Amino acid sequence: MITAKIVGAGGYGGVGITELILRHPNVSIECMVSLSDTGKLMSDVYPHLRGKCDLEIVSPDHISVNEKFDVVIYSTPDGVGMCTAEDDLNRGAKVIDYSGDFRFNDIGKYEQYIDFIGKKINHKSPHLLNKTQYGLPELHNLNSKNTLVGNPGCFAVSCLLALSPAVKNNLIDLNSIICDCKTGTSGAGKKISNQLHYSFRYENMNAYRLSGHQHIIEIEQQLSLLSDKNINVTFTAQLVPLCRGIMSICYGSLLEKNDLNDVINIFRNFYINSPFVRVLTKKEDSSLTDVRGTNYCNLIVDIDERTNKLRIVSYIDNLMKGQAGNAMQVINKLFDFDDTLGLDITSQYP
Amino acid sequence: MITAKIVGAGGYGGVGITELILRHPNVSIECMVSLSDTGKLMSDVYPHLRGKCDLEIVSPDHISVNEKFDVVIYSTPDGVGMCTAEDDLNRGAKVIDYSGDFRFNDIGKYEQYIDFIGKKINHKSPHLLNKTQYGLPELHNLNSKNTLVGNPGCFAVSCLLALSPAVKNNLIDLNSIICDCKTGTSGAGKKISNQLHYSFRYENMNAYRLSGHQHIIEIEQQLSLLSDKNINVTFTAQLVPLCRGIMSICYGSLLEKNDLNDVINIFRNFYINSPFVRVLTKKEDSSLTDVRGTNYCNLIVDIDERTNKLRIVSYIDNLMKGQAGNAMQVINKLFDFDDTLGLDITSQYP
Amino acid sequence: MITAKIVGAGGYGGVGITELILRHPNVSIECMVSLSDTGKLMSDVYPHLRGKCDLEIVSPDHISVNEKFDVVIYSTPDGVGMCTAEDDLNRGAKVIDYSGDFRFNDIGKYEQYIDFIGKKINHKSPHLLNKTQYGLPELHNLNSKNTLVGNPGCFAVSCLLALSPAVKNNLIDLNSIICDCKTGTSGAGKKISNQLHYSFRYENMNAYRLSGHQHIIEIEQQLSLLSDKNINVTFTAQLVPLCRGIMSICYGSLLEKNDLNDVINIFRNFYINSPFVRVLTKKEDSSLTDVRGTNYCNLIVDIDERTNKLRIVSYIDNLMKGQAGNAMQVINKLFDFDDTLGLDITSQYP
Amino acid sequence: MITAKIVGAGGYGGVGITELILRHPNVSIECMVSLSDTGKLMSDVYPHLRGKCDLEIVSPDHISVNEKFDVVIYSTPDGVGMCTAEDDLNRGAKVIDYSGDFRFNDIGKYEQYIDFIGKKINHKSPHLLNKTQYGLPELHNLNSKNTLVGNPGCFAVSCLLALSPAVKNNLIDLNSIICDCKTGTSGAGKKISNQLHYSFRYENMNAYRLSGHQHIIEIEQQLSLLSDKNINVTFTAQLVPLCRGIMSICYGSLLEKNDLNDVINIFRNFYINSPFVRVLTKKEDSSLTDVRGTNYCNLIVDIDERTNKLRIVSYIDNLMKGQAGNAMQVINKLFDFDDTLGLDITSQYP
Repeated sequence: MITAKIVGAGGYGGVGITELILRHPNVSIECMVSLSDTGKLMSDVYPHLRGKCDLEIVSPDHISVNEKFDVVIYSTPDGVGMCTAEDDLNRGAKVIDYSGDFRFNDIGKYEQYIDFIGKKINHKSPHLLNKTQYGLPELHNLNSKNTLVGNPGCFAVSCLLALSPAVKNNLIDLNSIICDCKTGTSGAGKKISNQLHYSFRYENMNAYRLSGHQHIIEIEQQLSLLSDKNINVTFTAQLVPLCRGIMSICYGSLLEKNDLNDVINIFRNFYINSPFVRVLTKKEDSSLTDVRGTNYCNLIVDIDERTNKLRIVSYIDNLMKGQAGNAMQVINKLFDFDDTLGLDITSQYP
Repeated sequence: MITAKIVGAGGYGGVGITELILRHPNVSIECMVSLSDTGKLMSDVYPHLRGKCDLEIVSPDHISVNEKFDVVIYSTPDGVGMCTAEDDLNRGAKVIDYSGDFRFNDIGKYEQYIDFIGKKINHKSPHLLNKTQYGLPELHNLNSKNTLVGNPGCFAVSCLLALSPAVKNNLIDLNSIICDCKTGTSGAGKKISNQLHYSFRYENMNAYRLSGHQHIIEIEQQLSLLSDKNINVTFTAQLVPLCRGIMSICYGSLLEKNDLNDVINIFRNFYINSPFVRVLTKKEDSSLTDVRGTNYCNLIVDIDERTNKLRIVSYIDNLMKGQAGNAMQVINKLFDFDDTLGLDITSQYP
Repeated sequence: MITAKIVGAGGYGGVGITELILRHPNVSIECMVSLSDTGKLMSDVYPHLRGKCDLEIVSPDHISVNEKFDVVIYSTPDGVGMCTAEDDLNRGAKVIDYSGDFRFNDIGKYEQYIDFIGKKINHKSPHLLNKTQYGLPELHNLNSKNTLVGNPGCFAVSCLLALSPAVKNNLIDLNSIICDCKTGTSGAGKKISNQLHYSFRYENMNAYRLSGHQHIIEIEQQLSLLSDKNINVTFTAQLVPLCRGIMSICYGSLLEKNDLNDVINIFRNFYINSPFVRVLTKKEDSSLTDVRGTNYCNLIVDIDERTNKLRIVSYIDNLMKGQAGNAMQVINKLFDFDDTLGLDITSQYP
Repeated sequence: MITAKIVGAGGYGGVGITELILRHPNVSIECMVSLSDTGKLMSDVYPHLRGKCDLEIVSPDHISVNEKFDVVIYSTPDGVGMCTAEDDLNRGAKVIDYSGDFRFNDIGKYEQYIDFIGKKINHKSPHLLNKTQYGLPELHNLNSKNTLVGNPGCFAVSCLLALSPAVKNNLIDLNSIICDCKTGTSGAGKKISNQLHYSFRYENMNAYRLSGHQHIIEIEQQLSLLSDKNINVTFTAQLVPLCRGIMSICYGSLLEKNDLNDVINIFRNFYINSPFVRVLTKKEDSSLTDVRGTNYCNLIVDIDERTNKLRIVSYIDNLMKGQAGNAMQVINKLFDFDDTLGLDITSQYP
């Protein structure tokens, strides 16, 4: 049994990985850490966990935090994991961090990122950056040798899965990429705000952070790695009145007249060993519900023949493949479990 | 491994029990029957089941329907199970029916029911009624001797769990019972209608079937069994703009001045062996979300001291404890499995 | 042209009366006061008012606040209007207050109320209480002689319109009254909270304030006035996932076997001069949408014959008939305008 | 007083124009025609109109249909208006049609359109096409000389208002235009379907009609008129879980490095005489709610400097500026009323 510590247990990312570990046969939660709700049981904060996870939430300076765990999940904002991940690594843990702290392999790229999002954070552990791995299993070969993983951003997962086969196979003009992305409210987390007040949000939608969303830099970095060229994308984040889910539509100008079937085959080959990616055609008429509560990404691969544009519709559950589900998959990789272990539970409809 | 046949697989009740059996270690779906969507795969009709349940849906006259199965679930409207359940029983199956066909033990009660709801159905198997068992495990001792079970109506589950301890223990005036019940849209099933059109239903709510809802008679019958007196209840069904869930508030005039703690203890004792009923106080601040996607019923037990009325707030997921989840629990009882087998998977929040 | 000052302009009650005055031919907003957002334009806070109401919001100590206005609306919580209403009255204004400050005619009743809701407020203007009028035009003859009005609570409007004809005409047992009330999120106002966070509130519902809602005392006082007897009611507030609207179901045990048509006629006669109350039967199949955005109250009058209970379903828009719409109607009364002036604009569907 | 006949009164387009005419001081509805609900009162079909519009809905062969009216609104699908509009014109009426029947000025363009959407309709009145005017007042000078107007499609309004200033002023590469559009359920009308069933649609979103949406051809035609070049656009329609509203994001590659302020000024100048278009910057943080229930279009004009792409966010209420509101504005134009007459009523928030 693998033992786990969850830092930032009180947020949606924390409760998400908690639910998944509770469903997993080989992992056990031993320590839950949070700045808020300390002293409460996890099931007091999240009553649906009553009888399932009644552990006490402890503060970061609680003695139990310093014990040895097999895996530590940092479900924390930028600037937290970088301070203590090294301690966990030194105690022999593998570390997965949800923030931007470990998504970049060199300090320059990190600084570009943190600058882009307008935060003033000096990386506390720059020497760890050459060890860290961007944690999208469909793009990178994660395995038991990895010890430190930067779990990708939700929009990044959605767009990278849509675009990578096309970029890798030189199908599209790299200057033409547009990612038009719609997310539900859970993407903004548990923290209350005017924008997430029910009376404001119902029957409403809007584009936000037009000046620059925090997931753009990692999308560009990963696409650049695939193409060996520097890529900039136009990215628009939008909030629609639902809770869980992302639908991204990614556009790119095709360099040649491609046959749709050929393109679909390129996508299917790219994901041939990726159990959580389904490549579909527009006839298959998918929608967000098909992936809700699961770790799947459904991709509709399409060509607008009138304008010769590639158009990919990408559906994920932002809290699953976009966050905790992907982290669980990464844990499976890091401990040589099957990718789908604990993640293949049938979801519920409607 | 127990083999199962699902009749009426294409509806919400059918897909609900499908999802649960897929999560269950000891049951396997071998046959899916429906009048509609025959010839399609279950996963074509419900794409979230792709790769999980790709069985073909067959019509009722398909040859495979007549094979022997260990358990047959009729997720069908009134008048279907009564026609063929006997064949299944004769082949050695245990039968669970979701409709009113097998919720009553004598033909008179059945006729009162079918008359009350304004349908003209003559029971095709009246001789089976003395064998059938009303399938609410919290009220009745279901076990491997049972072969034929009438799965309760969703509102009935919600109200019976709220009222039974009070009625059984003579706490309330039996003429004073009011059940004020709110349900989501999934309670009306998959069939489209003007009332369930999104543009009509969003930001809307209404009371419906004021002339008489189909679950009243079984609530009254079960309460009468507990009290040994004839009971009529005032029942109001309401539709609110959400999909899954029932919140019922049940009121009754207390016969004496009771201490709230005593009443709570009466409820806790009543449900001491019922793993899916949680008896809570108003301080515990529950809401529908706490039971969504699960087989739990959360009860807030309260007394309005100014009017000396007992007031019970009852939360269930109408498709779980109100339907397929309860049926799964019944299957566990009928095959001597633990009550919670396959039903204790952690739900997801938010 | 009647001039108006709105105190508490920044909340939902303030923006509601603003919208209505903008639609009214004879009233003009001259001053908007708020503790928050001072210095901003009303249309900065509420962008849908851009070009319609671009007045600056001023703080309560701004000099313009002390000018003479014909009518002052206090869209403020308990304890605000009582401090400065007298100044407005002395300057010749008529005053309408949304809080409990002026809903009671004697200090004892007020203290019972404020105690019941667990607040510690000493009434600052007890000598005004014998002048104030509870502002429900369907129950009280409001006219140009009134100068100080306590605008009713939203649940109170909903329940009083449902129950008054029955209580006034001695139809029901006064100890049997139950008010089961469902409201949308706007009833809780603009202030953000965990309970109103979209991700918590979607697909959720719950009963709240079981210990005692602030509108109970005024319901009881008004019903007691109608019956000349002391009445206590059982009242349950519930929050459902929509924004605007209240559906209350009010129950009472009929003292005799009444014919439904007779009861309906009693209701119709009671409201014969009330242009905003529609008395309907269950055949007319109303729902919340029929009153959304309007000042109407739709009542379904029904008898459950099996239990001889009167059951009234009451639909209002909580921000219209339940708050600003009713206040606008009161203004019409106080200035001898037609009841419906500025309130008869066709609403929008869907 | 202008008299109006509404054909297709029973749908959302019909009830929308009904509501607006009821708010309009100079127009009176005299005749309501529909294939369904004939014999019923409009207020039976739409109970929110009770006491506001109690006219009987008549069938198309009712005698009153052939009387003379000043304006006739065809709120009907493709193929209806073309059959009888000429009769109305001959009787001296002005005609506004909501379908594609009169959106094109020559039969070739119409045939391209009807072919593109996969319908087999031969235009019954091709000789009227040279008389008809595409009815978007912001692009075309509509006035009392116009007698026949094709009211634009909702997505077309949304995208044309976003793109026209840029196309007219040669700001963008005409081969680079992408329209990514999200609509609510009301865009699909009153007709029930599996896709619009509440239980399917809640918490769901999807792209649809990827093969070709019916509004593409008119967008292209209008943009081509502005640029004098043939333009094809990539257009993606998406359905999100709300009822009223469209948010479109339109992208185009800037031909030069433009200063954002210059571009905003180009937009402001373009719409200087358009009272219903608001040109905003990303700092102004608009959302759909700002236009809900109104005839406004809010445009956020933005440049993604990293990729030198123009990005316009366009918000409209699809049933107002996207349909009935625009038709009302057209009526104002055709009868020399002020553009905003009957359309400047303050909307309601939240």
